[in-house]
Amino acid sequence: MVNAHSPGSVSQDPATAALIARRKAALGPAYRLFYREPLHIVRGQGVWLHAADGRQYLDAYNNVACVGHAHPHVVQAIAGQAATLATHTRYLDETVLRYAERILATVPAPLTHMMFTCSGSEANDLALRMAQARTGGTGIVVTAHAYHGVTQAVSALSPSLGAVADMPAHVRTVPAPDTFRAGGVAAQGFATAVAAAFDDLRHAGHIPAAFVCDALFSSDGVFDPPGDVWRNTIAAVHAAGALFIADEVQAGFGRAGGGLWGFARHGLRPDLVTLGKPMGNGYPVAAVLADPLITQAFAEQTRYFNTFGGNPVAAAAASAVLDVIETEDLIASAMAVGGALRRALGDLQSRFACIGDVRGAGLFVGVEILNRDDGTPDAVCASQIINAMRDRGVLLSGCGPQANVLKIRPPLVFDETHADLLVTTLEAVLAEPC
Amino acid sequence: MVNAHSPGSVSQDPATAALIARRKAALGPAYRLFYREPLHIVRGQGVWLHAADGRQYLDAYNNVACVGHAHPHVVQAIAGQAATLATHTRYLDETVLRYAERILATVPAPLTHMMFTCSGSEANDLALRMAQARTGGTGIVVTAHAYHGVTQAVSALSPSLGAVADMPAHVRTVPAPDTFRAGGVAAQGFATAVAAAFDDLRHAGHIPAAFVCDALFSSDGVFDPPGDVWRNTIAAVHAAGALFIADEVQAGFGRAGGGLWGFARHGLRPDLVTLGKPMGNGYPVAAVLADPLITQAFAEQTRYFNTFGGNPVAAAAASAVLDVIETEDLIASAMAVGGALRRALGDLQSRFACIGDVRGAGLFVGVEILNRDDGTPDAVCASQIINAMRDRGVLLSGCGPQANVLKIRPPLVFDETHADLLVTTLEAVLAEPC
Repeated sequence: MVNAHSPGSVSQDPATAALIARRKAALGPAYRLFYREPLHIVRGQGVWLHAADGRQYLDAYNNVACVGHAHPHVVQAIAGQAATLATHTRYLDETVLRYAERILATVPAPLTHMMFTCSGSEANDLALRMAQARTGGTGIVVTAHAYHGVTQAVSALSPSLGAVADMPAHVRTVPAPDTFRAGGVAAQGFATAVAAAFDDLRHAGHIPAAFVCDALFSSDGVFDPPGDVWRNTIAAVHAAGALFIADEVQAGFGRAGGGLWGFARHGLRPDLVTLGKPMGNGYPVAAVLADPLITQAFAEQTRYFNTFGGNPVAAAAASAVLDVIETEDLIASAMAVGGALRRALGDLQSRFACIGDVRGAGLFVGVEILNRDDGTPDAVCASQIINAMRDRGVLLSGCGPQANVLKIRPPLVFDETHADLLVTTLEAVLAEPC
Repeated sequence: MVNAHSPGSVSQDPATAALIARRKAALGPAYRLFYREPLHIVRGQGVWLHAADGRQYLDAYNNVACVGHAHPHVVQAIAGQAATLATHTRYLDETVLRYAERILATVPAPLTHMMFTCSGSEANDLALRMAQARTGGTGIVVTAHAYHGVTQAVSALSPSLGAVADMPAHVRTVPAPDTFRAGGVAAQGFATAVAAAFDDLRHAGHIPAAFVCDALFSSDGVFDPPGDVWRNTIAAVHAAGALFIADEVQAGFGRAGGGLWGFARHGLRPDLVTLGKPMGNGYPVAAVLADPLITQAFAEQTRYFNTFGGNPVAAAAASAVLDVIETEDLIASAMAVGGALRRALGDLQSRFACIGDVRGAGLFVGVEILNRDDGTPDAVCASQIINAMRDRGVLLSGCGPQANVLKIRPPLVFDETHADLLVTTLEAVLAEPC
């Protein structure tokens, strides 16, 4: 995993070392911490995370706290609804209906139904079941370094987890449209690759069901190919008889700028959309948006219930997040601050040979780190930068199949002063010998 | 589904009918409401649910609100932690460690690791992946009317969902140990049936992985077979090379009386335990407890992360639930009130021919409803009782493969006055012509 604390290494700080030992004893060996020297965070406020040792860190990584850590409007909504009612969707409830109606008003036809889950993993898992019900197929195409969640069904669609086993027989991968290496025009080959993957599935006896794709290729290295690439790809998906599942778990809720949804910037019409992480600013809530023909096919096979999914507290938290996105004008801010941030990073690129590319949309930015001598992807240098940034008080992480892309994905309340701090800190880090 | 509002039927109340129509338009056709005349609940307090029309209902069904709806200690814990920090397990955090250590102190060796999810579905899905990693097998045995969740992997282990398709090739079902029809001794046949099912799987080429079983057979009709049945069954599971996954999502957290865990009453040592519904009194939190040999095998295959699973607010909510279970002595109360409730229902059984059996443990009670003329399972009569109880202000539901078992599963703060109200109301309902 990019930016994982090595389970074998020892912290220099005795209090941290003791916590790591307790954690290993209680949670076991499958969990990973961030950073060479892990952080013990005790409080969050806006774009700031405060550690137990009194240091504060600029959070340029956590998209879940999209309206800022501990936003009072969201906290009050959670507290107020939890004190009133926290039950399930087998009773009538207006909070969840008002929220569903509000979200459905933001998406194009034919997305008219909303179904609630607790996590993005559950949302992708449900969308998959629904796509299979509608198509009668099981064949899935994903990108080569995709991440779509941790249930058994969707971890099989998540090659970035680095599972030992080969991908299952019903899954094919295609390289993400690498706008840095292939360029915008060459990225057009993406649609061709997706079509070929579905052909291959069909020849192997797997009826095509879905193309599942992260709207900003978050794990593949952060790419934002032109609208043509998307439109051609969706045409290829539909020509194969499959459905397009737009995974907006990371890109959604205004992060990409230019609308609430990553796909909306290109006027796309997905068959299914999955939502998650930022939806409740940390409260566990996620959802699937669907074409009614798909929900109908699914309902003919089975019924759906999720004990916590769509409970009134989840709906209240999620509604409060939408309120803040609107009242604080965070979509426009993501666009403006993200643009300024990419421009400033572009200036650094012109001065530091190890920056090969600066890309993304809104407040989702990828910075490709290359070896300054031979221009190859440099995971070691990326890791050094990530840890040096942490040591200087700025939190970001990495992604990409070569683990060499800085992943910058702050809360949407990140403003230009925060962007400046990030860039000046990065400049200082890059000026040091790598 | 037992006790489902028929999607085609129309409410007599215009406000209810309008809400149902909005719900159908926004959430689609796969969701189900409870009761012939659905309830619009707007507030909960302790064992009471308050409807929009001003009526209050005694809640004898909702196990999620285990310490009572809107318990102030839990609400304060959620509000306080949400205002402080709600982030993920890639930073060090004491709240989640203290909670994990507290839970792990309540379970027998070798259960020494705890991993967090958002829902019981995710917990069972993860336990399944872990069992497969440890055994190298995929073969699963479950009961014939089991429910273990809604992800793709565990909905395949949930025949009670009534999926159209046949069970997958790697799954076998066995009838639950029906202590009513088969008797306690004959229920011993359960172990033999489980052994035969694993034999059958092995002969079909599916290496045994796990026996997944609800500690109180919640969906199969509520059974509490003697400890011998469990011990023999677990011996058969282990003899087959499989692991025992104790699904405590419904039975756990003191409901069965005699300890926090359903399996603990018989001194059993499961290999994996899954927790869910009541864990956070409505906050979405769930977990897997595991033998470290299993987590080790899993960690050798993949890493684990769940964005919301084990976040500090989830841990704070779950800790507060444990506080209340301890300070209000709710395990002893579940035992005492549940015992009194079953005795009073037993009195009704002696006077009303339609009650064939009263069973369960602690505050999880099943009442078998039979046709008073021929003694066969009577789903129509059970449904009439459930709806008549609702009309008189007491909420319960039904279960079992024949849909004829009343399912009584109130918050653990249900006291003897509440039990009296339930029994006198049921007596009045039974006195009416069915």
